[in-house]
Amino acid sequence: MDDKVSLLCYSSDMSPFAYTPDAVVFPRSREDVVEVVKYASESQTPIIPRGAGTSVTGAILPRRGGVILDFTRMSSIKEVRAEDLVAVVEPGVVLDRLNAELAKHGLFFPPDPGSSSACTIGGMVGTNASGVRAAKYGTTRNWVLGLEVVLASGEVVRTGWPVVKHSTGYDLTQLFVGSEGTLGVVTEAVLKLAPIPPYRVTVTMFFDELGLAGRAVTEILLSGVRPAAMELLDRTCLSVVNEVFKLGLPSREGFIVLELDGTKGSVEEELRKVKGVADKLGAKDCSWTDDPKESLRLWAARKALVPALAKVKEGHVLVPLAEDPSFPISEMEGAIRDFQALGAKYGLTTATFGHAADGNLHPVMIVDPADPGQWGRMLRMEEEIFKSVLRRRGALSAEHGIGISKAPFARRALGGGLEVMRSLKRALDPKGILNPGKMGLDVESREDPGNLLYAYLSRLRGELQALRRAYEAVRCFRCGFCRAVCPTFNYFFVESKGARGRVILSYYFLGGLVEASEALRQAYDQCTLCGHCVQVCPPGVKVVDIVEQMRRDLAAKGFINSVHRALGENILKYGNIYGLDNAARGELAKELRGG
Amino acid sequence: MDDKVSLLCYSSDMSPFAYTPDAVVFPRSREDVVEVVKYASESQTPIIPRGAGTSVTGAILPRRGGVILDFTRMSSIKEVRAEDLVAVVEPGVVLDRLNAELAKHGLFFPPDPGSSSACTIGGMVGTNASGVRAAKYGTTRNWVLGLEVVLASGEVVRTGWPVVKHSTGYDLTQLFVGSEGTLGVVTEAVLKLAPIPPYRVTVTMFFDELGLAGRAVTEILLSGVRPAAMELLDRTCLSVVNEVFKLGLPSREGFIVLELDGTKGSVEEELRKVKGVADKLGAKDCSWTDDPKESLRLWAARKALVPALAKVKEGHVLVPLAEDPSFPISEMEGAIRDFQALGAKYGLTTATFGHAADGNLHPVMIVDPADPGQWGRMLRMEEEIFKSVLRRRGALSAEHGIGISKAPFARRALGGGLEVMRSLKRALDPKGILNPGKMGLDVESREDPGNLLYAYLSRLRGELQALRRAYEAVRCFRCGFCRAVCPTFNYFFVESKGARGRVILSYYFLGGLVEASEALRQAYDQCTLCGHCVQVCPPGVKVVDIVEQMRRDLAAKGFINSVHRALGENILKYGNIYGLDNAARGELAKELRGG
Repeated sequence: MDDKVSLLCYSSDMSPFAYTPDAVVFPRSREDVVEVVKYASESQTPIIPRGAGTSVTGAILPRRGGVILDFTRMSSIKEVRAEDLVAVVEPGVVLDRLNAELAKHGLFFPPDPGSSSACTIGGMVGTNASGVRAAKYGTTRNWVLGLEVVLASGEVVRTGWPVVKHSTGYDLTQLFVGSEGTLGVVTEAVLKLAPIPPYRVTVTMFFDELGLAGRAVTEILLSGVRPAAMELLDRTCLSVVNEVFKLGLPSREGFIVLELDGTKGSVEEELRKVKGVADKLGAKDCSWTDDPKESLRLWAARKALVPALAKVKEGHVLVPLAEDPSFPISEMEGAIRDFQALGAKYGLTTATFGHAADGNLHPVMIVDPADPGQWGRMLRMEEEIFKSVLRRRGALSAEHGIGISKAPFARRALGGGLEVMRSLKRALDPKGILNPGKMGLDVESREDPGNLLYAYLSRLRGELQALRRAYEAVRCFRCGFCRAVCPTFNYFFVESKGARGRVILSYYFLGGLVEASEALRQAYDQCTLCGHCVQVCPPGVKVVDIVEQMRRDLAAKGFINSVHRALGENILKYGNIYGLDNAARGELAKELRGG
Repeated sequence: MDDKVSLLCYSSDMSPFAYTPDAVVFPRSREDVVEVVKYASESQTPIIPRGAGTSVTGAILPRRGGVILDFTRMSSIKEVRAEDLVAVVEPGVVLDRLNAELAKHGLFFPPDPGSSSACTIGGMVGTNASGVRAAKYGTTRNWVLGLEVVLASGEVVRTGWPVVKHSTGYDLTQLFVGSEGTLGVVTEAVLKLAPIPPYRVTVTMFFDELGLAGRAVTEILLSGVRPAAMELLDRTCLSVVNEVFKLGLPSREGFIVLELDGTKGSVEEELRKVKGVADKLGAKDCSWTDDPKESLRLWAARKALVPALAKVKEGHVLVPLAEDPSFPISEMEGAIRDFQALGAKYGLTTATFGHAADGNLHPVMIVDPADPGQWGRMLRMEEEIFKSVLRRRGALSAEHGIGISKAPFARRALGGGLEVMRSLKRALDPKGILNPGKMGLDVESREDPGNLLYAYLSRLRGELQALRRAYEAVRCFRCGFCRAVCPTFNYFFVESKGARGRVILSYYFLGGLVEASEALRQAYDQCTLCGHCVQVCPPGVKVVDIVEQMRRDLAAKGFINSVHRALGENILKYGNIYGLDNAARGELAKELRGG
């Protein structure tokens, strides 16, 4: 696929970066991948593996051009061996679909990123994704037993075995996990599974001070409780989930929601301990539920929090930079205070939430990307967040990866380790064709992210109507939740035929990057206007309005469906015959036949 | 250290291989290590890191000569940050000592190899060691958050962070873990810790058929129970632990001992499920205990099983080859049957036990190493065990590593992965100075292990008395349990001044590899004959007898302590003055002074 309209839809992810590929290829088999990689190797063309396009760091963007390998069509669940607690899958399988299949066997694949309805196993392997359950269940790497990988040479290797422990050679599986597609292209994964715990409760509690909530997290962990998930939200986040999901939760400075799972007896014991900590620290409204529906509602709200934050402030977007550090448990409280102080210092709208049980905080900055003042303050705050991370012995990224966005900070975080990574990269990809420009491997700088995706906003200054429409389009966070429900996407499996692609295209159209064309018309024409995308869209982007407006714009420029055009011309010529009653229509038909 | 007597004590591990180093260095700091590595790099000298010398595969032997870096003197626990569940340690710290220290904080480091009283964290990192608790707690790699590593260039890098999750660059930590010292020398480890579970029970059950025991393991796992440990022993193993530890357990074909840990409520729920499986499969004598002493006795017996197997048959030793495969759970029952059939086919005394909950079986072959017929059959059986492993999609080694012993099988097991490993090795150690000759990296063959350590037995044929003494010496399995208790070893921290070294030296002395000398005399002279080593020695090697006999042999050749010699000469000259009463002795003293 190499037409401009299609390619533009592959130019962005959840980050503020944007680079357009030269082509997108949709492999259906390992052999397809080998062929592409061999071609790329001979022609020195960059290749960039991509799952659902929900990367937060630019890791899946073709920074140096090249070919995107989109694994959407390579998504079969090849084998579930329940007795061995093992599944074998292709990289394009979507996490929620895998877990629905595994549930039939009473099993699940524990890593659980917020993007579970869209994200693929391949993407999770590339970034070592995790999410809310990491404290108890670990990250993706803990659940990958083996991989099939196409190396830069086109050679295929298998790593690992379907066994839970081995000491047989270097752990190549773990080298590939989290390497963001820079060392090889994964074409199959052997996953470890866990039995679904028989009993689960969700506990919520509120605090009048965010620091107290941080303290509660530490004390719960030290009490020996192992929460399956434990999330901490500040007032901003709490109000967003309240508003978007109508949860009716009390409005306080700190909110903790946690899940306990296991046998009923063990969960009840843990619940008593959690309540003990809540009482001791003066939590407000501590309550719990074992009703799966109620729990699901709370967790769905939490999972959709990031995209929903895009709704906080009119004409502002959530820019994910420095969005994913992790800290030693004892540093969390201090780190939260750092973020609050920095938000105040730089006068930015900020929010903090995180997978508190594993020290992973998500500080969030919400800015008007077209305002150079805010943008500059945001970049200075990013720098200071990372200083806080390094001072507190934290890691740059807990689960999103380095990609493009954190590359300028890689050296400070990794020290000599960056040179070791480079040696390994050269050893496995001497020509540098595998996802170049990422992780600080071959380039440690980045373009000003303000000059990429958001640049078109600045260009639209003065064109109020178009600017307003462009802001609506960039409220789309590219989270890809709509991929799961869009009927045309799920027929074609091509971004330009799906809701997210249509929003992206409308933005580029307004910005003047793409012109009215037959291809563009088709992208909008095929939309069924069913509105499912709007229902699952956390920031509630008005996709249907966008599509209808684009159809009008394109029609105004002469691009119109041939059937519609014929129909219109017909009406202009003969009047609206569908307005006539049956008898009169019959007469008219006779007349036309006669004439 | 470079005298022959001292060096010979570093020529063996638990494997049948033997290679003598050119020197042994005892670093006390990172700087010492850097200096040695830089010297080695300049002079192209192999360097071999070593912990307690309990490797089972020859991984710590200087196959190409060179310098052993013995970390015994670099063993401090630098930091325990209880709140973060993190400890920072030097590589030479012994596991049991670490856990004793952590227990003061209510914490523990879960990986738990049988050699815990001797083995060091550095060695565990090198081999990704695990042991009985891996099913629930994973292997060493799951508990290592970061490392300080001296690279082949002498450069020092730090990997990882004291956080439980990260996606910040290639996971270098996991690349070094399990790399058997071939990629870098670890000088510090940041470990993840767990709270000690409040309640533990040990369950035992017996079966009339070994396959049924294998079935029980599978069913227990599929019932959702997560045993902290679950071990399976066949009749041979059961009788050994019964005999050595006087446990008085019933004699049956299959024995399962498992540990459940957690809160009291959860353990009780799991216990009900385990009993259900036992009833269903007709287990005999299923019983349980929550008495820590009773549990400890059972588990101590299990942990000492391997060395104790050396006692099964007079004049026979346990040769650890193909001793450590792991299997998918569903293949375990079949694998056990394979081993039994192979033992019968080759007419060898075999035993099977294993960490059943994680598919790790330890098939054991017990042979007279001086009998070429048995030796040849053992090597053919080894080959067939690995065929069974590959056919059943298992891994060559679950926890011991490849080292020298499994190198000839590495290519079949790893396929193209071996070439990937070689690329990585070349990238990080271009001169090949780090532990060369291991893992199939630079050489895939091995010398006939019968021509190494055990060769001296064949040479002694005909000298019945010496042969008998040599067999007693090779009953020593080099497990190193005596390191923890030997008073002279714990003063000098040098093998030749400890029980294990004295046994090894006696063997080489009998075999003619080392001659009587002043240095050899010193090794035996310093022994206090306290006999602690005999008490902790699982095969019960008569170390005190060996030392006394060696003293006599050396004295006969004129090597005798100067004090003892003076005393003896004195007695010969003046008679035994200590036989006189005090008054007479006083008179004699006056006389001598006068003369």
